[in-house]
Amino acid sequence: MTGAAHRSEHDLLGDRDVPADAYWGIHTLRATENFPVTGTPISAHPHLIEALAAVKEAAARANEELGLLEPRKAAAVVAACREIRDGKLHDQFVVDVIQGGAGTSTNMNANEVVANRALELLGHAKGEYAHLHPNEDVNLGQSTNDVYPTAVKIATVFAVRGLLKAMAVLQDTFAAKAVEFRDVLKMGRTQLQDAVPMTLGQEFSAYAVMIEEDRGRLAEAVELIHEINLGATAIGTGLNAPAGYAESARRHLSDITGLPLVTAANLVEATQDCGAFVQMSGVLKRIAVKLSKSCNDLRLLSSGPRAGFGEINLPPVQAGSSIMPGKVNPVIPEVVNQVAFEVIGNDVTITMAAEAGQLQLNAFEPVILHALSQSITHLRAACLTLAERCVAGITANTEVLRAAVENSIGLVTALNPYIGYTAATDIAKEALATGRGVAELVLEKGLLPAERLEALLRPEVVAGSAAPAA
Amino acid sequence: MTGAAHRSEHDLLGDRDVPADAYWGIHTLRATENFPVTGTPISAHPHLIEALAAVKEAAARANEELGLLEPRKAAAVVAACREIRDGKLHDQFVVDVIQGGAGTSTNMNANEVVANRALELLGHAKGEYAHLHPNEDVNLGQSTNDVYPTAVKIATVFAVRGLLKAMAVLQDTFAAKAVEFRDVLKMGRTQLQDAVPMTLGQEFSAYAVMIEEDRGRLAEAVELIHEINLGATAIGTGLNAPAGYAESARRHLSDITGLPLVTAANLVEATQDCGAFVQMSGVLKRIAVKLSKSCNDLRLLSSGPRAGFGEINLPPVQAGSSIMPGKVNPVIPEVVNQVAFEVIGNDVTITMAAEAGQLQLNAFEPVILHALSQSITHLRAACLTLAERCVAGITANTEVLRAAVENSIGLVTALNPYIGYTAATDIAKEALATGRGVAELVLEKGLLPAERLEALLRPEVVAGSAAPAA
Amino acid sequence: MTGAAHRSEHDLLGDRDVPADAYWGIHTLRATENFPVTGTPISAHPHLIEALAAVKEAAARANEELGLLEPRKAAAVVAACREIRDGKLHDQFVVDVIQGGAGTSTNMNANEVVANRALELLGHAKGEYAHLHPNEDVNLGQSTNDVYPTAVKIATVFAVRGLLKAMAVLQDTFAAKAVEFRDVLKMGRTQLQDAVPMTLGQEFSAYAVMIEEDRGRLAEAVELIHEINLGATAIGTGLNAPAGYAESARRHLSDITGLPLVTAANLVEATQDCGAFVQMSGVLKRIAVKLSKSCNDLRLLSSGPRAGFGEINLPPVQAGSSIMPGKVNPVIPEVVNQVAFEVIGNDVTITMAAEAGQLQLNAFEPVILHALSQSITHLRAACLTLAERCVAGITANTEVLRAAVENSIGLVTALNPYIGYTAATDIAKEALATGRGVAELVLEKGLLPAERLEALLRPEVVAGSAAPAA
Amino acid sequence: MTGAAHRSEHDLLGDRDVPADAYWGIHTLRATENFPVTGTPISAHPHLIEALAAVKEAAARANEELGLLEPRKAAAVVAACREIRDGKLHDQFVVDVIQGGAGTSTNMNANEVVANRALELLGHAKGEYAHLHPNEDVNLGQSTNDVYPTAVKIATVFAVRGLLKAMAVLQDTFAAKAVEFRDVLKMGRTQLQDAVPMTLGQEFSAYAVMIEEDRGRLAEAVELIHEINLGATAIGTGLNAPAGYAESARRHLSDITGLPLVTAANLVEATQDCGAFVQMSGVLKRIAVKLSKSCNDLRLLSSGPRAGFGEINLPPVQAGSSIMPGKVNPVIPEVVNQVAFEVIGNDVTITMAAEAGQLQLNAFEPVILHALSQSITHLRAACLTLAERCVAGITANTEVLRAAVENSIGLVTALNPYIGYTAATDIAKEALATGRGVAELVLEKGLLPAERLEALLRPEVVAGSAAPAA
Repeated sequence: MTGAAHRSEHDLLGDRDVPADAYWGIHTLRATENFPVTGTPISAHPHLIEALAAVKEAAARANEELGLLEPRKAAAVVAACREIRDGKLHDQFVVDVIQGGAGTSTNMNANEVVANRALELLGHAKGEYAHLHPNEDVNLGQSTNDVYPTAVKIATVFAVRGLLKAMAVLQDTFAAKAVEFRDVLKMGRTQLQDAVPMTLGQEFSAYAVMIEEDRGRLAEAVELIHEINLGATAIGTGLNAPAGYAESARRHLSDITGLPLVTAANLVEATQDCGAFVQMSGVLKRIAVKLSKSCNDLRLLSSGPRAGFGEINLPPVQAGSSIMPGKVNPVIPEVVNQVAFEVIGNDVTITMAAEAGQLQLNAFEPVILHALSQSITHLRAACLTLAERCVAGITANTEVLRAAVENSIGLVTALNPYIGYTAATDIAKEALATGRGVAELVLEKGLLPAERLEALLRPEVVAGSAAPAA
Repeated sequence: MTGAAHRSEHDLLGDRDVPADAYWGIHTLRATENFPVTGTPISAHPHLIEALAAVKEAAARANEELGLLEPRKAAAVVAACREIRDGKLHDQFVVDVIQGGAGTSTNMNANEVVANRALELLGHAKGEYAHLHPNEDVNLGQSTNDVYPTAVKIATVFAVRGLLKAMAVLQDTFAAKAVEFRDVLKMGRTQLQDAVPMTLGQEFSAYAVMIEEDRGRLAEAVELIHEINLGATAIGTGLNAPAGYAESARRHLSDITGLPLVTAANLVEATQDCGAFVQMSGVLKRIAVKLSKSCNDLRLLSSGPRAGFGEINLPPVQAGSSIMPGKVNPVIPEVVNQVAFEVIGNDVTITMAAEAGQLQLNAFEPVILHALSQSITHLRAACLTLAERCVAGITANTEVLRAAVENSIGLVTALNPYIGYTAATDIAKEALATGRGVAELVLEKGLLPAERLEALLRPEVVAGSAAPAA
Repeated sequence: MTGAAHRSEHDLLGDRDVPADAYWGIHTLRATENFPVTGTPISAHPHLIEALAAVKEAAARANEELGLLEPRKAAAVVAACREIRDGKLHDQFVVDVIQGGAGTSTNMNANEVVANRALELLGHAKGEYAHLHPNEDVNLGQSTNDVYPTAVKIATVFAVRGLLKAMAVLQDTFAAKAVEFRDVLKMGRTQLQDAVPMTLGQEFSAYAVMIEEDRGRLAEAVELIHEINLGATAIGTGLNAPAGYAESARRHLSDITGLPLVTAANLVEATQDCGAFVQMSGVLKRIAVKLSKSCNDLRLLSSGPRAGFGEINLPPVQAGSSIMPGKVNPVIPEVVNQVAFEVIGNDVTITMAAEAGQLQLNAFEPVILHALSQSITHLRAACLTLAERCVAGITANTEVLRAAVENSIGLVTALNPYIGYTAATDIAKEALATGRGVAELVLEKGLLPAERLEALLRPEVVAGSAAPAA
Repeated sequence: MTGAAHRSEHDLLGDRDVPADAYWGIHTLRATENFPVTGTPISAHPHLIEALAAVKEAAARANEELGLLEPRKAAAVVAACREIRDGKLHDQFVVDVIQGGAGTSTNMNANEVVANRALELLGHAKGEYAHLHPNEDVNLGQSTNDVYPTAVKIATVFAVRGLLKAMAVLQDTFAAKAVEFRDVLKMGRTQLQDAVPMTLGQEFSAYAVMIEEDRGRLAEAVELIHEINLGATAIGTGLNAPAGYAESARRHLSDITGLPLVTAANLVEATQDCGAFVQMSGVLKRIAVKLSKSCNDLRLLSSGPRAGFGEINLPPVQAGSSIMPGKVNPVIPEVVNQVAFEVIGNDVTITMAAEAGQLQLNAFEPVILHALSQSITHLRAACLTLAERCVAGITANTEVLRAAVENSIGLVTALNPYIGYTAATDIAKEALATGRGVAELVLEKGLLPAERLEALLRPEVVAGSAAPAA
């Protein structure tokens, strides 16, 4: 076959030529022809490729252990899988991310790449399947219906770890700002109307806490993803998988991935159920909602520079306009908002795909994987760019913020207990009528001495963490 | 039967007692037991009840015309239907708004109420179906599968008319404000950052135009709703409906409702297809998106009173807070936002219900009707309350708005052609560094005489509708 | 005031007459005028009314304990709250479920009803607020912004308890069927194509396990709802709430409700964050997805009676058609599907409302409460009606199911290890070509003795729980 | 600069090196660093790149016409734009598809590529902006805020044309099958239960009609996309765009694209409004809903081969399973379902992005473009692969279908008018009790002669298009 541009392969539909240097084979070829949808190959989700290789390796080890696969073959399969996990053959995973067949084409693509690379390692040419067969050897004891969901779960676990780290970075960045701004007095707002005083540190602290809570939820959701159905084969009855296979494959897979994987108690249920993915997507949506809200706030607080809130300054990261010199826009929060909208849309996609499962299988897991993987990796990128290119460089317009407090009507609420309700109401009315500041009026009328007013406006008092000095 | 508390009725499952004074019968009884979901009866959608009565009346007239229904019976059915359309028996429509059976229970409820009222008009007691039968007479030549979609369409047309009127009111209210504010100069903003000058009239004009365009789209979508499938019977083949029935029933129904109804060319398609409802819901969602955006803007422009944009004042309609004296909140835009969120959620519900149709029928039209009817009537209420209780009473803080323009950096962009790019850039830099206003600096440096600057800031110049005086 | 039809009340906008016998007052009156949206009063969510009364009672007890409210007044407030919790005044909660103002109108409605009922108990007439004031006494130390979210959480906890119970009923019903059908052999299907044998018991067991897992997730999500922000007042700084108030109010509220409530560590964050509601709705959506999938399966398995799968029979609960005699439809699964679509749409509504929160508050919690409450209570009804009116009465067409296995091509997969791959492939080809059954051909060709084939088809073997007898 | 690996460029944030051979410049560089989100460059949407080039060319021609741009420069810009439209520089469009800044980075990327290519054509080196400047010359008279939405609209129009053609192919394919199957008798189903007879041709005809109607809606929605805001500049006031510019640019753009473009009457509204995109996405969602429903049906009708409906056969396009020999799955309908779920999710993304627009601009159009472009192009691929790889090769199991009709209980409904209601009911009961066929019983009891029964079962009679022969 040396020198030939193609090799011929055979399946139940007949013969087809595949490029001689392709590690993938006839099943992959047909899949690329059948699903010309997005133009994006599954290698765009590298965690999935690596997880598939881990599953194939675990299965080979289990099959060897059970005496079903010759050690020589098993060793070649294991070696091929490790190359894949090292990223050496990702370009051979060419089937489209949106595909029919419940992931069969992805599984077939993996079987073919592993087989052909293993064949080479055994000294054979690609396509000489008599020596090592994609289905009979690489896929031995497996079915797409247990391999694919298992690989999707492992891929998700690894992707989520990256997101958790990025969220921790963002949380720390917000928390550092909360400390930096702990003495910056400002007006709090409810329903966009001036309410009562607080500190800018409290405002940023809330963002940090939101992310901390979301990290907790995400960590819980990812726990559920550790339950796999490897060994279920076609529908969960374990047909054709020998006794001990499921346990052995799970053990090897845990060993390879370092993950505490658990085999589902009810494999029939586990094979058809996408609940863990829906749950995960729901938590990602929660994260998106909070991130989007926080970015909305950052854009609002930095609105201006003159005809806006003008409370904080986002670091400029690129020119905002060719037509308006000097304009700098909140482009980093804006990109995070858009990622959030995408994640929320993906959640609907995942919901519909999960609901559409029928009887013993959900045929629509490929689009679930695709949407879930996008949501996780885009959120990760969003958290990092938000932390590093925006939040870390935020500065406060301290004087503007303090003046707004002193000038606010809402300050009256805080002074209520000290000057009495009647005086407070009168001050409020006069401030509204004249446009003058509450602090100024209180001092002018001698309702409080200046040092007392100052004490009541100390940040720790306003923030509620200390009683005002008597 | 006089005096008895109950009468006994029979169906294929056996005998059941129904209250003697109920116009509904055994089929309705079973439905109320089977679907105890929301507690909201279908009478909550009065347009649907009236549309059902119109369909029943049209069918009776057609059946009489074709010699299938005795004139005496037909007259009684017609009379009963008219009472329903006059709102006299709405409390008899008791099945739940969310129900299984593709609307069969709603249709059965209608058949029973019409039959029992017609029986009374004929001098019989309720339940004496030997004289006039809910299925064999009232439902003659019909099937739920053509009656129900037809009634839903007519109900939708009438509901949408109310929405169109309310939108016109809101459009006019915004347009009146656009005229009132046509000379109010202000800073325009992009990405929440100060951009270039405009007039407040232009800002409100945009809201009016948005609604005008949405009205156009809604009017187009409602046109599609005029296509009905009456005469299709069970699956669109017209089985058991005599020749001429579909045409006659449509003619009578057009006559009764005053609507230019059209019978679908392909009744098999029309009986299973929910496309017109999905389209309608998509347009309602579009309206919701625009209304929500406009309300977001109103809340933003009225933020403050001191630590916000403070550009406009919404009329106070209720106290905003018990704890913060004098606080007034933008509650009317807020309620409109929430209606918008509900409409957008309803669109997903309708989408899923439409997608779930199988083969010759969509069994999920009841939830489509319920969600669609909510969206339309809630949007109508939202438009009216927004127009009357908020927009009509908005006032502008003209001085604040003008000062922001004169003080803005963005003004430089407008002066660019008159003072030159180099001078403009220098002014912008100095303004940013010193916090001083652009207008002030331009005058101070003698770059423009005061009257020239004034001319360039005339509202009609800023708005782009007039060239500046030379 | 005796005998008068109205009493006059006053707020910052002026005077208004309210009906003399109304327990609600001027704030409620204005709210009903401002929000004429759905026509559904908040009393449609009785858990919320009861939770509000619990919060008001807890606050009164805390205020009394701290010496801020006279014991006499406190006792009257507590007594009024208990009447409300007993359901005696629900009809006085008349503000619309969709309302602007972040729940202020709901809180005001509660303050007014409690105050007026307490006034009566103290021997005063309604409206004599000099003796006990809705804001100054009933709302003492509180703000809508801590009262309302706290009440929503308590209401949600109680509603979810009802759902958890209903889910347990449904789980048990499926599990009982799994036992009943444990020996019923059938073909499993993947992608709607015949796959390999299983038992009907396994199929129903999967449904039971799905619900069990969902119950676990729901129980986790409801835990998060026990964190409250009472004591936060306006924005979380606790302004105007005396030292010890938050802790005392929480303690009393836990005592009243029997719930292990926890005060949030960061009250600023807790006051603006809707994450727990988004999480809860995400889990409800997960439940909806699974329920809908299960109902899709039930409708598919019972399709027929002749031109369908015809594997199981759903109990008839109402006549299916007037035009097609004897037709019985799967109306109970259908209504459950529709509830699921509604819950999924509600999740989008809740997501958008949560994302729209700004700065220190989310003004859109009323629509979150409304959608969440609907989702929970409708799912509860759906689970119960599905269990009691459908699943409990399902019967199996055992002979049809077994014949399909024996007649299937997929049986070859199961026989593979026993007759060899080559023979299996030949049998499969002959079966496909001739339309004959695999079992029949295997016996005819003497590939297996009849008793061996029988052993391999024993349910426990097929189900994977036992090895075939050697 | 020859031979250097980099050139230095300058913006308001300072100096940066860009690769010497890059046509993009410093603004593009910063954008790639700021938005490392998806890894997918905007060149993944080639219609957008070509539309941007068309806008730039039109603007250059207009500027030349108005005497604002030297003919020599204009000619170079036009030539560069034509190269882009010919696909020669797509790899230079490297900013991420999800980006902040309302499309500014995409516009800047285009300005830089056009400028640098034009510089080369003028005999200068890349980066020698003194001779031709990306902002001052290429972007002259423009703003991102009018260029970007205009380009998105043109790109959408061209993409939709491709979709319309693909839908026509699918419609024709279904219609051809409707003709092929016009004489194939089968049972119609409602709610998955056997209903009354129809023809398979009618079933396929409904799919053809659905697509035809959707094409009509899509053609209407794309009309709305022809309204552009070029000339609006920053916020719609046309600031800094000379008189006559908007009209001239529109005329040239219509000329270049061949599209009947219209300038919006209210440019302030047009610049902030995303209604046309929401409408378009709503129609795409409608198409997705119908396609998904049709594919659900195809999967259901081809379920089996033995334990399913088994009415039609989808052509095998790839092996279905490694573990189950001979299994062929409905992978093409499955991939179409998944595209539909993605489109429906994208609609939510677009809805949220549109709702999030604020004041004079929507900053989130990049994610709208991205989602819209995906929806359109994926739907196009889905329609083509469904037509060519599935529908065109569908065959009918004619005998199975006919037997089901003769064996059905529902046949009684059709015979009702000929054998009488009482006899029909008796036949139905006996058929149900004995499992025998209705046709068989009717003949056995002599209720109809064989030839009469045959006549009543003629396809054209069943289909409702002909009266039965007397």
